[in-house]
Amino acid sequence: MALGEFELIDRYFRRPVRRAALGVGDDCALLQPRAGMQLAVSTDLLVEGRHFLSTVAPARLGHKALAVNLSDLAACGAEPLAFTLALSMPAVREDFLAPFAQGLLALADANGIELVGGDTTAGPLSIAITVFGEVPPGQALLRSGARVGDELWLSGTLGDARLALEAFRGQVQLSGEGFEQARRAMELPQPRVALGLALRGIASAAIDLSDGLLGDLGHVLRRSGCGATLYFDALPRSALLAAQPLALQRTCLLTGGDDYELLLAAPAARHDHMLAAANQTGVALTCVGRVEDAAQGLRVLDASGQALNLQGLAAFDHFR
Amino acid sequence: MALGEFELIDRYFRRPVRRAALGVGDDCALLQPRAGMQLAVSTDLLVEGRHFLSTVAPARLGHKALAVNLSDLAACGAEPLAFTLALSMPAVREDFLAPFAQGLLALADANGIELVGGDTTAGPLSIAITVFGEVPPGQALLRSGARVGDELWLSGTLGDARLALEAFRGQVQLSGEGFEQARRAMELPQPRVALGLALRGIASAAIDLSDGLLGDLGHVLRRSGCGATLYFDALPRSALLAAQPLALQRTCLLTGGDDYELLLAAPAARHDHMLAAANQTGVALTCVGRVEDAAQGLRVLDASGQALNLQGLAAFDHFR
Repeated sequence: MALGEFELIDRYFRRPVRRAALGVGDDCALLQPRAGMQLAVSTDLLVEGRHFLSTVAPARLGHKALAVNLSDLAACGAEPLAFTLALSMPAVREDFLAPFAQGLLALADANGIELVGGDTTAGPLSIAITVFGEVPPGQALLRSGARVGDELWLSGTLGDARLALEAFRGQVQLSGEGFEQARRAMELPQPRVALGLALRGIASAAIDLSDGLLGDLGHVLRRSGCGATLYFDALPRSALLAAQPLALQRTCLLTGGDDYELLLAAPAARHDHMLAAANQTGVALTCVGRVEDAAQGLRVLDASGQALNLQGLAAFDHFR
Repeated sequence: MALGEFELIDRYFRRPVRRAALGVGDDCALLQPRAGMQLAVSTDLLVEGRHFLSTVAPARLGHKALAVNLSDLAACGAEPLAFTLALSMPAVREDFLAPFAQGLLALADANGIELVGGDTTAGPLSIAITVFGEVPPGQALLRSGARVGDELWLSGTLGDARLALEAFRGQVQLSGEGFEQARRAMELPQPRVALGLALRGIASAAIDLSDGLLGDLGHVLRRSGCGATLYFDALPRSALLAAQPLALQRTCLLTGGDDYELLLAAPAARHDHMLAAANQTGVALTCVGRVEDAAQGLRVLDASGQALNLQGLAAFDHFR
C-alpha cells in the first residue's frame, strides 16, 4: 500500500497537542515557554549501520531515537517539553512505521512531551530528533562545573550495550538470556530525566555517556580545567558483564559507548544528597572517583592502586 | 587529513554565541526567549539526490539548507532566533565543510541568528536543520486563517527552480545565462523573513511554497475550509520562464516545487497594506486570485476565463 507523505504524517505522527500552542501540520509549531525559563535544546542524529543495526525492532528504534535526545536534557537537568522528528527512510512501510511511532510516542508519553513538528522523506534510513526542555536560569547542569575535590558518580550500570555489540560482531559468546539482557541495554536505553531534575543544585557538572566513559569524562575535564582519578573496581556493571574476561570488561566500561547513563561531579559534602536523589528517583548512583588538579591528567586505578595503561582505549568517534 | 568529529565541530561550526545563553559544545544549548513570546519551531530534512543534486556547490547547499527552514519561520511571521544542525556525510572533507559552513553561516549572519547545537556523523549526505523563532502570542500567520473573499498573493516569482531541474534532466534547453539564472533560483532561494514579519496583522493566512503552488494552496484551503480561484496569467514569473512553451510554464508555475516564496491570503480591504509591505521590504507581491467557498473547489482560470484542466498536475511528494 502506497501512502503519500502527507497521509503518512497524519496517520502515524499527528496527535492532538496538549501543551504546545500549535502542533504538527502548519509551517511551524508554536510553543509557549513559561515566563523566565531558559529553553534547553539538543539534536541527535541516528544513521543505520552506525548508530543502530538493521536487526533492531522498529519499536525499539523509535524508543532509542528519542531516548538518546532525552538523555541530553537529563544531563542538563532540564524538564522535557517537546520534540521534532526528521525521518528519512527508503520506502513508506507500514510494518516499520506503525511500531516505530508506537515506540517513539510511548516514551514521549512517559515523559509528558509531544511531537510538535517534523519532516519525512525518502532516503537512507536516518532519524534526526531535536528536543526542547525548560530549566530555570542558572540551574542547568553543565560540563564545565566540576571542581577539584568533587566526587565523580555514575548512574545505573555501564558496558552492557557494548557487550551486545561485541556479541553481534561475533567477538563474544553469550547465553540466550545474557544476549537478550545486553541487547535490551543497547536498544532500550532509559534516559535519566528524573535523576537529572533531582540533581539540580546538587551536582556541579554532568554529561550523558554516549561515546564511552573516558571520552565523555574527558569533555567534562577539559571544560572544567581539571583532571580525575577513577577507581576501576568501583565502576558499576551488571553481573553479566562482571562475568566476562577483564580485558573485555575494560573495553566495555571505559570506552563502551551507547550507555546513556549520567556521569556527574558533586562536592564531597553533598555525598548524602546524591544518595538521597538516587533513592528518590529509584536510579542507582555509584561514587566512582574524584576530580583532581588538571596536572594530574586522567588516570584509572585498579584495586591495588596501580594505574591502568589506557593506551589504545580511544573514545568512540562517529568518524573513526 | 583526517579530522575527528569533535575537532570538526570546533573548526567549522563553533563560534561565540551572542544571543543564546549557551551554545555548541555542552549536552544542550540554552536559549532565553523573551518573556511572553511564543516559540516557533520548524524542521526540514534535505537528502542528496532528492532535495539537492550532487552538482550543487557546497556553499550554496549550506545556504539552501538554512534558507528552506527560515522560509518556514517567514511563513509564520516569526523572527528567527537560532538553529541546530544534524549533518551526516560520507567522509570528513574540508573542501566540502569549509564552503558549506561559510554558506550556512553567512545566511545565519544575514538573519541575525546563530547555530546553537548539532550532531555530525558519517553516513549518506543529509542535512536536518531545526530553526527557532519568536512571535507574539496570537500573531503567528497560520495556514488556517483564509476566509472567503480574501485575495491570494504571491511573493517574488515562481517556477525558475523547476525550470532548472528540467534543464538538469535534459528536458529543456536553456542558454548559458538562462541556465545560471534558473540554477540560482533552485540553489539560492531567498527566505522572505522580513516580508513575513511585515505581514503580521495584515495577512490572514500564509504558507511557504516548497511542494508546488497547487499542493501548498491545497493545504491552506483544507485547513481554512475554503476553495479558491487562481488567475493563471497573473502568476508572477521571470522573463526566462515566460519565454518557455505554455505547457512547461504550467508545470513550473503550478506544481514546480522548491520556490520558497510565500503564498498569502488577505482581506481585500487590506490590498493597499499588502502593497505597502511589499514596498517596505523590497519584495514583489502579486495578487493572483481569490478565496472562494469550499464548494467551489480549486480552479485555475486562463485569460479567457476558462478553467484549466488540472488532471495530471499532482503536488510534488517526496515519496512519489
